[in-house]
Amino acid sequence: MAKTKVGIINVTGYTGVELARLLFQHPQVELASVTGRSAAGQRLGEAFPHLAGIDLTIEAELGDVELVFSAMPHKESAREVIPLLEQGIKVVDISADFRLKDASEYERWYGFSHPAPQLLAQAVYGLTELYRSKVSSAQLVANPGCYPTGAILALAPAAKANLLQPNIIIDSKSGVSGAGRTLNLSTHFSEANEDTAAYALEGHRHLPEIVQELKRLCPEQPPSVTFVPHLIPMTRGILTTCYAPLVSGKIATGKKGETELKQLYLDFYKNEPFVRVVSSPPHTKHTSGNNLCLVYPTIDHRTGRLIVISCLDNLIKGAGGQAIQNMNLMLGLPETTGLQALSVFP
Amino acid sequence: MAKTKVGIINVTGYTGVELARLLFQHPQVELASVTGRSAAGQRLGEAFPHLAGIDLTIEAELGDVELVFSAMPHKESAREVIPLLEQGIKVVDISADFRLKDASEYERWYGFSHPAPQLLAQAVYGLTELYRSKVSSAQLVANPGCYPTGAILALAPAAKANLLQPNIIIDSKSGVSGAGRTLNLSTHFSEANEDTAAYALEGHRHLPEIVQELKRLCPEQPPSVTFVPHLIPMTRGILTTCYAPLVSGKIATGKKGETELKQLYLDFYKNEPFVRVVSSPPHTKHTSGNNLCLVYPTIDHRTGRLIVISCLDNLIKGAGGQAIQNMNLMLGLPETTGLQALSVFP
Amino acid sequence: MAKTKVGIINVTGYTGVELARLLFQHPQVELASVTGRSAAGQRLGEAFPHLAGIDLTIEAELGDVELVFSAMPHKESAREVIPLLEQGIKVVDISADFRLKDASEYERWYGFSHPAPQLLAQAVYGLTELYRSKVSSAQLVANPGCYPTGAILALAPAAKANLLQPNIIIDSKSGVSGAGRTLNLSTHFSEANEDTAAYALEGHRHLPEIVQELKRLCPEQPPSVTFVPHLIPMTRGILTTCYAPLVSGKIATGKKGETELKQLYLDFYKNEPFVRVVSSPPHTKHTSGNNLCLVYPTIDHRTGRLIVISCLDNLIKGAGGQAIQNMNLMLGLPETTGLQALSVFP
Amino acid sequence: MAKTKVGIINVTGYTGVELARLLFQHPQVELASVTGRSAAGQRLGEAFPHLAGIDLTIEAELGDVELVFSAMPHKESAREVIPLLEQGIKVVDISADFRLKDASEYERWYGFSHPAPQLLAQAVYGLTELYRSKVSSAQLVANPGCYPTGAILALAPAAKANLLQPNIIIDSKSGVSGAGRTLNLSTHFSEANEDTAAYALEGHRHLPEIVQELKRLCPEQPPSVTFVPHLIPMTRGILTTCYAPLVSGKIATGKKGETELKQLYLDFYKNEPFVRVVSSPPHTKHTSGNNLCLVYPTIDHRTGRLIVISCLDNLIKGAGGQAIQNMNLMLGLPETTGLQALSVFP
Repeated sequence: MAKTKVGIINVTGYTGVELARLLFQHPQVELASVTGRSAAGQRLGEAFPHLAGIDLTIEAELGDVELVFSAMPHKESAREVIPLLEQGIKVVDISADFRLKDASEYERWYGFSHPAPQLLAQAVYGLTELYRSKVSSAQLVANPGCYPTGAILALAPAAKANLLQPNIIIDSKSGVSGAGRTLNLSTHFSEANEDTAAYALEGHRHLPEIVQELKRLCPEQPPSVTFVPHLIPMTRGILTTCYAPLVSGKIATGKKGETELKQLYLDFYKNEPFVRVVSSPPHTKHTSGNNLCLVYPTIDHRTGRLIVISCLDNLIKGAGGQAIQNMNLMLGLPETTGLQALSVFP
Repeated sequence: MAKTKVGIINVTGYTGVELARLLFQHPQVELASVTGRSAAGQRLGEAFPHLAGIDLTIEAELGDVELVFSAMPHKESAREVIPLLEQGIKVVDISADFRLKDASEYERWYGFSHPAPQLLAQAVYGLTELYRSKVSSAQLVANPGCYPTGAILALAPAAKANLLQPNIIIDSKSGVSGAGRTLNLSTHFSEANEDTAAYALEGHRHLPEIVQELKRLCPEQPPSVTFVPHLIPMTRGILTTCYAPLVSGKIATGKKGETELKQLYLDFYKNEPFVRVVSSPPHTKHTSGNNLCLVYPTIDHRTGRLIVISCLDNLIKGAGGQAIQNMNLMLGLPETTGLQALSVFP
Repeated sequence: MAKTKVGIINVTGYTGVELARLLFQHPQVELASVTGRSAAGQRLGEAFPHLAGIDLTIEAELGDVELVFSAMPHKESAREVIPLLEQGIKVVDISADFRLKDASEYERWYGFSHPAPQLLAQAVYGLTELYRSKVSSAQLVANPGCYPTGAILALAPAAKANLLQPNIIIDSKSGVSGAGRTLNLSTHFSEANEDTAAYALEGHRHLPEIVQELKRLCPEQPPSVTFVPHLIPMTRGILTTCYAPLVSGKIATGKKGETELKQLYLDFYKNEPFVRVVSSPPHTKHTSGNNLCLVYPTIDHRTGRLIVISCLDNLIKGAGGQAIQNMNLMLGLPETTGLQALSVFP
Repeated sequence: MAKTKVGIINVTGYTGVELARLLFQHPQVELASVTGRSAAGQRLGEAFPHLAGIDLTIEAELGDVELVFSAMPHKESAREVIPLLEQGIKVVDISADFRLKDASEYERWYGFSHPAPQLLAQAVYGLTELYRSKVSSAQLVANPGCYPTGAILALAPAAKANLLQPNIIIDSKSGVSGAGRTLNLSTHFSEANEDTAAYALEGHRHLPEIVQELKRLCPEQPPSVTFVPHLIPMTRGILTTCYAPLVSGKIATGKKGETELKQLYLDFYKNEPFVRVVSSPPHTKHTSGNNLCLVYPTIDHRTGRLIVISCLDNLIKGAGGQAIQNMNLMLGLPETTGLQALSVFP
């Protein structure tokens, strides 16, 4: 059977090259075309020596493919993707351009007027675990942000079960690759190494995405979320620590409550190939290089607060891996195809 | 004038060697004696090449000194320190053994029965900024833990002003040196590098210390604290992000509230040589190698929550530096003597 | 067709777990049994969460398998492996116990009398690129050390072509995982991070292995090798910089000589799936997570000296990956089976 | 006594800020003026929060000072410095512009025609240990490069004693801060972290400096030097491993030779406050934050080769610290003034 041809728009960022790496190793699709403006004309393996095994030239224009991943920055991505959709091509958009349902949020958070608000309803938010059936039949999937993937997977079971009081704190720690390949003083080695700091205190763009999804999960008790991301001196990985007061009376107190809580999470994720509920605080290193999200729910007994910690590889489950997970569904392939690598440890 | 002779019990851990480094450079005291069981008999510079400039041998027993720093582990420290106190020697105890006022807390958190509960009342909690005058006249100072120093300095101005509702979340990110020099798989380079994880979810021993001090600061509204420490792949530094709902009506909303809040913090710390209220999220790297604590208070306007971020060098303001700050007061020296180094950047 | 059953003795070190990871993903063999004394009885995924997908318990004794990898320390490995060989089981020994052909070298370098010197002649040195046909028919393969793999692959083409004068300097830079999982102050995070140092100046145990193989490659001009390994603050990767004066008259001077040299290397490795001759100084990061060795030959024109730089992932091409490359040949499988992953970048 | 006023041209790079830090803490001089084009008008502490304690504004033009440090890039530095020299101001030039004695070398290595070749004879090469008395009376000191400082100090005693055969290999490992503050893909955190690579194989600009000084030390046997620098994932530190065949008959063989060699080094450096001859391979971490160069000479007995390893902090003894060491001499101050900090460990 001929493999489905797929392409990547803007292969030259970290998400783009990670997609290329994963797609090259995918047994059921063929990476047929990759684009990148500044590097157009270069062999992929020249620009990125670790991809030297891939026989492709970076092009200015996309070739003939059935499904496209857009790794363009927001605003530009919509512009690239809209004509492709009109041609009937399937799209997994890794930018933020189709994640938010309310077009006015783009003005508020991204500072532009959305060029195709009608597509926002049509686009499926590609957090696969929550929207699996919709993804399967979608033409346009909006791949979630790296932070929202970890935060929503951490809180979804409790939110869905209406266990959460609204006062939710989400404290995330991200490796530096999440800041991309564009040069910047804050990601200059000598400044980022041996340093930790919070950023985007005035409101990170991933916040409306987190809020949108938590609201859908518990519409009766809309959450009030504070989200603070931090930059950590490592290349890959996001660890997210979520705090929320538990609604009283829904779950037992003490150790018994902890067991109930864990069971709730185990049940919620029992058929999920890429979410693992674990029994001790997870390490980002245990997801490095694979598509897993580890989730650890527990209770702070002194205060009756829920604490849930999740971690994932920001470039895989937080970007390219989840995009391929969505692609698999969109193409009718088994969801785990090409994504079964174990993490590379240590 | 003859310099005051001081000594270090258990010089061979990271706090011990940091004390030795700082005391050697101190113009008003003489580091006269250092002990360490396993390394007794070795030259200090053999065991620690960076201290080769110090002409001292590690001894089994402490020599003749006027003031002692104990860098022993908890429980053992009390045992060493009690006889010294009886001889009239001044003591800065860097262990936890005299930090908690309620002796029963030692059974609960440290699993031992305190050998001298009567000393707990006498001991001064050495968070210098809060207990300056008591420290000045103390014979026994209990030097605060590294996490409590950052957390309490972050929250003290707001707590004292009764701005905080009780639901306080403290999320700390610590470099690996905080875990000490004892070998452990979790601090083995290949396991800790490129990794981030939370630990002590069941309750870290620094929690009762934080709670004790926050209660003293706002006795009418005792706080309910959740504290989660995380290990970060860097050697030095602690960044602490604190979250608390603001009591409504006490402070303006919007940007105006932020200005009022910052002014409150500036006023609270206006004469403090080692606390700096900053205008953007602080970086641990900016405190590496010095005795500063940087504090950044802000408000999450969407939720009305206070966020305060602090950072410090866990081995200096979080341990040895603060110990010397206390020593300076106990000896009647200017508080900043020997502690004015700028941080080493990058 | 039934998969061949293979096992790992001493799975609990970094080479052991890397073998387990790679074998689990291998399509033609079944990882059927893993042993480890201290962890016997534990589930593999309990001891190593990144291997949770593997359904195996760590055993005290090896089960029924056709081929075994021994990841035991030297001296102990021979003891374990000899009875297996007598039962007709194929063995890839990752320790040093069968690498040296001259039994007296074990006394000199490893301090023990070899228990089965007769096996040294029978064992095939598993640097696959040099001994491919012998490996194919071997029962016992001695998998090369991580340093020798990089150093010999760097120098083999020039040595074979008799281009080298004997004065060879090999300066290697290794990530910390090469020092294993055993706790040690030199691999304690706070000591190894932000540090670089040389070690084993008195003679590293990998030296006799390098010398043995270089002698075989150019028997007429036995090399005089100085080898100095260095520890670098990263987890994976070895970069080796080799220096040797060129025999005059064999190769052109100037740019022309550089071209000839590169061509010689390209020819030597033209059919090698896991050695890539590159055109600029290689980065360890470009081999992280895969079985490649990158080799960059050049000439220092001012001095007429050959410089060859190689790099590889010490746990893959330097250990577990090469072991599987050898296993593939021993089992009659295509050499690249299960080893085609691209490196994980960044 | 009034302190001498000094200034820094181009304070905004890593050498500039390190100079500012060290000069601020210097008891005998006053840092009176700092310049920096892009940041002119900013407070020093705004641009560099770790310098917030220094009460200075970055200026476009230098104020009134007696001695200037130029941290400008090469070529531009000469242009800035020449008019100052004409005004009688003392200058420590940290660029390469006055290090080489032969003006034609600037065309060859730096690609520009030197604007003031007559100054090259007048300038003193500021490797303090070799040119102390000349530095004392100099108006213009050319501060050595970071790599040459480590390499020359490693080889000087042996070179001076005519122990070296000409075939010298210098293999250096540098932290990333040596590459400066200018943004670059090779110093982008995600690319430099967990990576090691060689660079400048075609000839690093520090090579002519090393060769010039080694020739002066042993004029009868001019050395043939290969120098390869490597980038290591740490912020500070350079470790240099030097290899050279020993002239036979000059030194005993075996352990006795090692003792003689060590004694030769101890004698050579016996009065040096900032060079320490050590007895085991030195660690960059032991010089982090101070002005020391550690030197470890040994012999590879199997080959009769000299190996000398040195290490230093590239921003201190390799740049700003040595510049201040030179300044002290130029101003008639004790050489160690302001430079006695112990290294910050761990």
